[in-house]
Amino acid sequence: MTRGRFLTLEGGEGAGKSTVLETVRARLAECGLDVVVTREPGGTAFGEAVRAIVLDPAHRAMCAESELLLMFAARAQLVREVIEPALARGHWVLSDRFTDASYAYQGGGRGQPQERIADLERWVATLRPDLTLLLDVPVTQGLARAGSRGGAADRIEGEKEDFFERVRAAYRQRAAAEPARFRVIDAAAPLDAVQAATRAAVDAYVDTVEKHV
Amino acid sequence: MTRGRFLTLEGGEGAGKSTVLETVRARLAECGLDVVVTREPGGTAFGEAVRAIVLDPAHRAMCAESELLLMFAARAQLVREVIEPALARGHWVLSDRFTDASYAYQGGGRGQPQERIADLERWVATLRPDLTLLLDVPVTQGLARAGSRGGAADRIEGEKEDFFERVRAAYRQRAAAEPARFRVIDAAAPLDAVQAATRAAVDAYVDTVEKHV
Repeated sequence: MTRGRFLTLEGGEGAGKSTVLETVRARLAECGLDVVVTREPGGTAFGEAVRAIVLDPAHRAMCAESELLLMFAARAQLVREVIEPALARGHWVLSDRFTDASYAYQGGGRGQPQERIADLERWVATLRPDLTLLLDVPVTQGLARAGSRGGAADRIEGEKEDFFERVRAAYRQRAAAEPARFRVIDAAAPLDAVQAATRAAVDAYVDTVEKHV
Repeated sequence: MTRGRFLTLEGGEGAGKSTVLETVRARLAECGLDVVVTREPGGTAFGEAVRAIVLDPAHRAMCAESELLLMFAARAQLVREVIEPALARGHWVLSDRFTDASYAYQGGGRGQPQERIADLERWVATLRPDLTLLLDVPVTQGLARAGSRGGAADRIEGEKEDFFERVRAAYRQRAAAEPARFRVIDAAAPLDAVQAATRAAVDAYVDTVEKHV
């Protein structure tokens, strides 16, 4: 059986990730592919328990090292329990965030050294996505959108604007360094344009894969 | 101000750690020292939330990598939030378990490589205890004691005997490698003998420190 492909969706606050995730999932399904959708941190019972700690505003004292270790603890479990088994049975996996998010949030945002993140990646989650869609939006615009959704901010959403500027810069840097894997989507555009760009990126990738099968 | 000292208590299941912890605390207090008692995993609001996940039997699928990362996530926070500040203000800190427990449980018990644990130690918790009391008891005897206490077993207490044999072997190996830091106490002896040995070890250490102050 052909191994499935691993797609990830990345982006900062208010980039419209939830909507685009559904667009990607629907498009893959239309292509006749079996799709497993998951998210980070989370995606397993263990990971969701870790997520609850990570996002709980009560843990505002949490140090950057602890945050990074929790992210990789959840990731290690997700890879072993969900992603690898799904890929092995030929399913495609679509994850709302993965290791790029640690480089962006814990690396860019919190200043944790890239080499440490790379060490953890090599050790517990060597798996790399085959395709990563990065929803890129200026921070002010993204935060305005996220704010208009209402609801209380979680521990990470509650960060200041310069934190999200560093997150965005780290994401863009990773996309620039790996153009073959990343597709940067202008998420500042109107929703229908974002969705059209998303579908075009997914279609182009699926075509490439089918030519090689 | 003279920096405080960091003492840890280690041992497997049913070694009598709780009782001995109180013996050590009381003896240090009798010596006129300010003592902060803490525990691992836990000791901070964040760490206690992590502890709840680690010990929850519902998370029996948790992979060894995730368990190790959670332990160091809790430890990083404990060092920064509790242990270092206390030592800096001249208090002595007594912790029910610390990094040696990761070498014993996640290393010996779960087979995680020593070098990975050492990497995490160097990175997030370089602090080493000044004195470590290891309560050593044959596994069968310890498990019989722990079982007689009643109550449901947590995720780690629910492990099999060979797991605890590996934990004990790893603890003894560490004690043998660092005789200047470790005091091994025969926890198979009757309680009054264990307590007498504990007090003697604490007194001897406090004497050494006072000679150097």
